[in-house]
Amino acid sequence: MSLLVVGSIALDTVETPTGRADEALGGSAVYFSLAASYFTDVMMVGAVGHDFPPEHKDLLESRGIDTSGLVHLDGKTFRWTGRYAENMNDRETLDVQLNVFDGFRPDIPEAFRGAKHVFLANASPEIQMHVLEQIESPEFVASDTMNIYIENELDALKRLMPRVHCFVLNDEEAVMLTGERSIVSAARAILDMGPATTIIKKGAHGSVMASQEDVFLLPAYPLAREIDPTGAGDSFAGAFCGTVAKSGAEFAGLRRAMAYATVTASFCVEGFSVDGFRELRRADIDERYEDFMRMTHVERVIG
Amino acid sequence: MSLLVVGSIALDTVETPTGRADEALGGSAVYFSLAASYFTDVMMVGAVGHDFPPEHKDLLESRGIDTSGLVHLDGKTFRWTGRYAENMNDRETLDVQLNVFDGFRPDIPEAFRGAKHVFLANASPEIQMHVLEQIESPEFVASDTMNIYIENELDALKRLMPRVHCFVLNDEEAVMLTGERSIVSAARAILDMGPATTIIKKGAHGSVMASQEDVFLLPAYPLAREIDPTGAGDSFAGAFCGTVAKSGAEFAGLRRAMAYATVTASFCVEGFSVDGFRELRRADIDERYEDFMRMTHVERVIG
Repeated sequence: MSLLVVGSIALDTVETPTGRADEALGGSAVYFSLAASYFTDVMMVGAVGHDFPPEHKDLLESRGIDTSGLVHLDGKTFRWTGRYAENMNDRETLDVQLNVFDGFRPDIPEAFRGAKHVFLANASPEIQMHVLEQIESPEFVASDTMNIYIENELDALKRLMPRVHCFVLNDEEAVMLTGERSIVSAARAILDMGPATTIIKKGAHGSVMASQEDVFLLPAYPLAREIDPTGAGDSFAGAFCGTVAKSGAEFAGLRRAMAYATVTASFCVEGFSVDGFRELRRADIDERYEDFMRMTHVERVIG
Repeated sequence: MSLLVVGSIALDTVETPTGRADEALGGSAVYFSLAASYFTDVMMVGAVGHDFPPEHKDLLESRGIDTSGLVHLDGKTFRWTGRYAENMNDRETLDVQLNVFDGFRPDIPEAFRGAKHVFLANASPEIQMHVLEQIESPEFVASDTMNIYIENELDALKRLMPRVHCFVLNDEEAVMLTGERSIVSAARAILDMGPATTIIKKGAHGSVMASQEDVFLLPAYPLAREIDPTGAGDSFAGAFCGTVAKSGAEFAGLRRAMAYATVTASFCVEGFSVDGFRELRRADIDERYEDFMRMTHVERVIG
């Protein structure tokens, strides 16, 4: 089973309370693909400019990611600059230069249109729909969104949501989208908009997944030291969709996928940019997964 | 096995985004005792004034709580007034009138001094030590603290901590006490101060328990509607210590106790003052516990 992701490829400049990275590899499709590559075959679609360093593409390919959907456009690569607050949860966007990402309407390569598993990373819901319509018969579609699309393109978003199996967003976005403060009520309101499942990400406070019949709660993996949370949400989605592509989409499988997602995202937070993935082996993920299972397990019957 | 708690008994005035309660029953010993009463026999020590409504004592006794350690002093009952922010997690203290709680040095009744399980609710660490020294041979001692004691009585607190088996506090207090921002590093630093186990409560974001060998993570029980979080932390501690008193203090037992604590505290948040406990039956707790276990369970092996 292989997994298609369409999203941004970026050069990020990030400042945290403990350090900074300048024009380092980032973007939703990049984090997603790297994380997913530990679980399944990944096909990536995105646009870069003439200034995109070739070693970044080499890194993606070294993880077996199919980059034949990566188009080189005339212009500069998308750039994002942000700064994290002392608590590492709140962040401020200091600068965005869309560059080649501006107006990018992805054409999905013929060879990718048979994908059964698809992730529509953060983009305008109209673009996400444009991508989805090129896929022949997807079995599992997940999508992300963000505040600007909830504010400015709500109608298009609401047209997309019923076509998505798993709608992923963060807690602030969930409140913004539904007007509901409690995570349970927000999840119910989202499900009423059409997706079979929703995942609400709460950063360092874990995540919640809900379907009409089921609710699943998971804490975050506790890190002694957070370096850079950029990309954690996309890494989470990558490992989640990668596990689903490999193991199936019944709710028990989705729970397990959430746990792998949580653990994989934690490695992302341990380095700037994609550094957390550079030396990471699948065995490291499995080891931390076992550790995480121990940390969250309650014995049903005692002594 | 019975459980002794020494703490405050209060008349609370609380304002939340959705309503208010005036001079309603509250206080750490009250919430703790009510929650613990679903799991074990409870002995309560505290002070009230001449204005303490007798029906409050009746409520405690209707739950089988031994109130013979409740002393009536000449003066008014402790009063606290607070207001919760829109997010229901942050709160502001508007007024505190210590009244009879001011300078109260509890004398533990002879009949209570053989208690094997003890909870030292929020009080000056010097008073908590004074209480502990009256207990003949406690097997499990848990204690709570708060910001003012960390700021003003740190030496006394550090003398108490090695004598406590389980040191309970919230995440803000943990940062204040240790200077560590990450919950893992904060927990390690607390354990280095002497207690065998620590529990860091994160309100609506769940809780973390740690010993030198083990870490346990638990989300909060997700409520569709929060009414009043006052007393949730003490209810959590009550159900926790009550379960430990009944089922033992090995780490697997402590994990199960944390889960019961989480569930019991959720009922507290569903009403103002102690209203969440008025009609609550043990069967309701057990039902929600099963529900919570389903919500947090990850199948280890899939298909």
